[in-house]
Amino acid sequence: MADVQLTLPDGAQKNYPMGTTPMEVAKGIATSLAKKSVSGKLNGHYVGMNDAINESGQFELITKDDEEGLRLLRHSVSHLLAQALNRLYPDQIHYGVGPAIDNGFYYDTDKVEGNQISVDQFPEIEKMMKRIVKENLPIVSREITRDEALDMFKDDPYKIELINDLPDDEPISIAVQGEHIELDRGGLVPATGWIKHFKLTSVAGAYWRGKSSNPMLQRIYGTAFWNAEDLDAEMTRRAEAKERDHRKIGADQDLFFTSQEVGAGLAVWMPNGAAIRRTLERYIVDREVQDGYQHVYTPVLSNLNLYKQSGHWDHYRDDMFPPMDMGDGEFLELRPMNCPSHIMVFKHHQRSYRDLPFRIAELGMMHRYEKSGALTGLSRVREMTLNDGHTFVMLDQIEDEFKKILQLMVDVYKDFDITDYRFRLSYRDPQNTEKYFDDDEMWEKAQSMLKTAMDDMGLEYFEAEGEAAFYGPKLDVQIKTALGGEETLSTIQLDFLLPERFDVNYVGSDGELHRPVMIHRGIISTMERFTAYLTEMYKGAFPTWLAPHQVRIIPVNREAHGEFAQALADRLVKQGVRAEYDGRNEKLGYLIRNAQSLKIPYTLVIGDEEVSNDTVTIRRFGSRDTATESVDQFEKDLLADIANHSRALDTLEKAVKGE
Amino acid sequence: MADVQLTLPDGAQKNYPMGTTPMEVAKGIATSLAKKSVSGKLNGHYVGMNDAINESGQFELITKDDEEGLRLLRHSVSHLLAQALNRLYPDQIHYGVGPAIDNGFYYDTDKVEGNQISVDQFPEIEKMMKRIVKENLPIVSREITRDEALDMFKDDPYKIELINDLPDDEPISIAVQGEHIELDRGGLVPATGWIKHFKLTSVAGAYWRGKSSNPMLQRIYGTAFWNAEDLDAEMTRRAEAKERDHRKIGADQDLFFTSQEVGAGLAVWMPNGAAIRRTLERYIVDREVQDGYQHVYTPVLSNLNLYKQSGHWDHYRDDMFPPMDMGDGEFLELRPMNCPSHIMVFKHHQRSYRDLPFRIAELGMMHRYEKSGALTGLSRVREMTLNDGHTFVMLDQIEDEFKKILQLMVDVYKDFDITDYRFRLSYRDPQNTEKYFDDDEMWEKAQSMLKTAMDDMGLEYFEAEGEAAFYGPKLDVQIKTALGGEETLSTIQLDFLLPERFDVNYVGSDGELHRPVMIHRGIISTMERFTAYLTEMYKGAFPTWLAPHQVRIIPVNREAHGEFAQALADRLVKQGVRAEYDGRNEKLGYLIRNAQSLKIPYTLVIGDEEVSNDTVTIRRFGSRDTATESVDQFEKDLLADIANHSRALDTLEKAVKGE
Repeated sequence: MADVQLTLPDGAQKNYPMGTTPMEVAKGIATSLAKKSVSGKLNGHYVGMNDAINESGQFELITKDDEEGLRLLRHSVSHLLAQALNRLYPDQIHYGVGPAIDNGFYYDTDKVEGNQISVDQFPEIEKMMKRIVKENLPIVSREITRDEALDMFKDDPYKIELINDLPDDEPISIAVQGEHIELDRGGLVPATGWIKHFKLTSVAGAYWRGKSSNPMLQRIYGTAFWNAEDLDAEMTRRAEAKERDHRKIGADQDLFFTSQEVGAGLAVWMPNGAAIRRTLERYIVDREVQDGYQHVYTPVLSNLNLYKQSGHWDHYRDDMFPPMDMGDGEFLELRPMNCPSHIMVFKHHQRSYRDLPFRIAELGMMHRYEKSGALTGLSRVREMTLNDGHTFVMLDQIEDEFKKILQLMVDVYKDFDITDYRFRLSYRDPQNTEKYFDDDEMWEKAQSMLKTAMDDMGLEYFEAEGEAAFYGPKLDVQIKTALGGEETLSTIQLDFLLPERFDVNYVGSDGELHRPVMIHRGIISTMERFTAYLTEMYKGAFPTWLAPHQVRIIPVNREAHGEFAQALADRLVKQGVRAEYDGRNEKLGYLIRNAQSLKIPYTLVIGDEEVSNDTVTIRRFGSRDTATESVDQFEKDLLADIANHSRALDTLEKAVKGE
Repeated sequence: MADVQLTLPDGAQKNYPMGTTPMEVAKGIATSLAKKSVSGKLNGHYVGMNDAINESGQFELITKDDEEGLRLLRHSVSHLLAQALNRLYPDQIHYGVGPAIDNGFYYDTDKVEGNQISVDQFPEIEKMMKRIVKENLPIVSREITRDEALDMFKDDPYKIELINDLPDDEPISIAVQGEHIELDRGGLVPATGWIKHFKLTSVAGAYWRGKSSNPMLQRIYGTAFWNAEDLDAEMTRRAEAKERDHRKIGADQDLFFTSQEVGAGLAVWMPNGAAIRRTLERYIVDREVQDGYQHVYTPVLSNLNLYKQSGHWDHYRDDMFPPMDMGDGEFLELRPMNCPSHIMVFKHHQRSYRDLPFRIAELGMMHRYEKSGALTGLSRVREMTLNDGHTFVMLDQIEDEFKKILQLMVDVYKDFDITDYRFRLSYRDPQNTEKYFDDDEMWEKAQSMLKTAMDDMGLEYFEAEGEAAFYGPKLDVQIKTALGGEETLSTIQLDFLLPERFDVNYVGSDGELHRPVMIHRGIISTMERFTAYLTEMYKGAFPTWLAPHQVRIIPVNREAHGEFAQALADRLVKQGVRAEYDGRNEKLGYLIRNAQSLKIPYTLVIGDEEVSNDTVTIRRFGSRDTATESVDQFEKDLLADIANHSRALDTLEKAVKGE
């Protein structure tokens, strides 16, 4: 038999007889390697551990230690799930696709007779999966002809559709484990016995191939690990994430809701959530005004022509709402972005170099047509209000303005105690400059100014070549969400293009017209996303200045102490404090526990002593201790606490802690 | 000849020979009456002073003293205008209609060759009108047949359309003055010589018969009076109104603009206007929160079904924007009102009698499809944000809640110094109760509670039977606009209907479900309309707390005093004051005049003395005097001025006035 020559990742080359299996290669290197190898990979294609290697090339072994190995395991568990479903409910289910995803896998299924899979069936399904694991069925891949494939999957319309959509010259391969056959490109564990530690986690609706015009399938989610400890840790992490999920806290604390009745992705902010949002809005507007921004209000609707001119209509139409025909030839559009509106503000007068940097900001409401399957609480919605701002600058002003925005950003983060983020500086791809807006000098100068600014300010960042927008380089601030994803919280984007498209100009000191550079910037993102983020970051225990209920005042006895408690609440409300008297006819212990369960920062209990001495007994959220203060002192401390974004707690906290 | 019997307004009956003219009747009563009589009116139809009276009936003489007489004059001037145009531009103009309106008249015209009438031509046109006045042509009305009419006006397509639209049995009459013929029902002065004191005032576009699908005509406006003094007074009033027109001040002070480019009726609030709006919004939200309202944010878009359920879609569709088809069977609608959204908030939890009155409020953005011809600056727009609120009450709580809202209203008016308004209490028509929502007891009880509340509070009001909404009685607060119109600023409306339509309920103390009454209320109207109103009321001289620029600081010499001035501006900005340093390279006098022309409340001038002594020299808007104060004292007074809605001026004003 002829030899094949394999080049290993370390560059070593070895010859093997044609038909050698990855398992044999592994064993030849080390027994321990063979034990932990999951699959071979030859020239970028997976080769099962027991399949034949029939050509020379780059070869590697994917092991349990690799991230990729874990994905192969999870992909294999999705097949195991389908096999179990098929045994439990033969001929009752059509199968879509079953890939590995971040943190697990899913399988899209469609019950033939309309009945739905529910989480109640998970134990039964998992039991069947474990039985198949015990059978330790070998998992073998092979190629088949298109005709064989069409015949093999003739009862599964989704698979038939996938086969028909494959290009004519694409080889079709299957993976077989016992009686079960999957349409599959390979990349699986060698046998079902390799699968030990898995869990089905949830089931949700998902459109077939992600298109809302397609049927809605059931997507069954699960996860798997190589060992029990990792699985347990992940399940614990998920339980915690669920606890801090802003949708759960949002319901517990009555912050917001969404409903089909009102409309998908259109959040209703209940009074508690609205109090947080109002505080955020005033905070950021005041900060920006003090920082030289001119706040405006511009319409949420505009003539569609604006978005044709900006390019949004050409490049972004799928994410936009349908235009409204107003008669008289006017089409109005719910704006997807605020930039064209702010350009209108700039252009309303002829500006001069003396006016630059010209900073416009707005709490700008926008509408984006997110797919209904992607809508998530407050973090993915269709109507949102962005803390948006645009600065028009001369090229030479970019660095200073960028620093100024960065400083604002960093200061704002401090006020919210946001610490877990990273900066990403995105440049154009130097190998591929023709992909970008065409002005080399502008790019070079702008990119180096951004980098210099970051270095000058001593901020850590990573650079991403090729990640810039078409219209200019940018800085993004990436944060982690409770659910483990990464999102952009803040952004500063240079834009050379829009000023061109809208013929924006200013009169220079030379008396000639010049083109400014536009900087798009968002500090705290949309009110929706930021509230979702803060809710999860604080686990619902909002600092006093943000808390929907800041102070709850409970009388020991309503008859004797109710009047004093009510008067105190009124006094605080007059100062703008969100304080309330809780005069419900319930036991004292219940009322205190209730206030603590709502994570209200200050619970005040009023009894004989307090009424006599004009004092309050204070219980801070999360503390088992109490402290007694004069009403005046408490009010003073409380107002300072609020004004200083809850960083001036010393006195009160010390008092409560008995220091 | 047979007699006709005329019954005069005082009840007297007299017989006259058939064919007697109103002029003869007048002369028979008194020469002075004949002199001032403009037209006769028999059985509700006009009879020209020199036309024959051919039937018996109710008869009256319309004189120059009557409001109606003035309308006849103005109507006659519109004919005079058409005659003059026809002489000046024969065969070049088509004529629409030319009625009297409040304060004047207009004539709709359409130039055949596309050229437009402009105000530049008014002197020439008025000159021709005066020539025709001098000719003193008699004005005579007579009936003609339809065929005659069609022939007579065959060159005037708009008149032909009007003739064709008349019912077959409707008599057609014309008014003839010299060579000029008008299609007209009568009601004109006897001859062109009666017209002396008139003025053409403006020209604007207007759709033929008010339909935007029809051609756009030119509407030429004018006015007329019986004597020169009245005309002069009116022209002066108009000049003043124009000076205080919020559109003019809005442009002068850069408060807002609208443009076709952004979209008709979609206001862009420039930084100055936005500062006013932001202040209004925070003010009213804080007031309402202190008054027990729970502020929310609800989406500007909702599922169309909500407005089908509320009845808006059936009864109000013409004023709504077109629905958007989102696919998946969902239609979204830009909401025309916020009530359904607030019902969703109420219904999100099961409420109990302990929760009532339940007060929900919002700065609720709404969209109304105003006809493009009706759009006016900020006062008539298509996108608006309403200071909206809804209270859910038990029937017995109406009176107290109504008083509470009224108290808020009156307190708020005081803060804005609004004094020129009147209350209108609107009841159902007692003769026609079946026209209204069907619950007699509810109506009776509610109406009497409203009246009692007004009386208890000692507020003056007038009652309007038959002016209630279908769904309940209401109170409106009527104000005068600068342009002379009357508008509703605030409203409190009881609604028995919507709670039915949305099946809104609460658990009563009896444990059963009950239907609440809903109170719609708006205190300061929409941000758009209220800002327009305040701008006109204050003539652009906003009190300090509302002024877009509160303090302007001008150095005598930039080199020597600029640093001090800038530092002072920064210090004030940090306190939330809208203060700015004006370091432009202009003469001191120019800078001071510029600040005064923008009606900035405080202009501070900084020279050597001020820098040495840490003082400021203050010039209040509208005062020629100045005063010097320490910086600390000025800051203290200024902050008090702002906090107290500019009613705590004593110290500063006295200082400036030298008291």
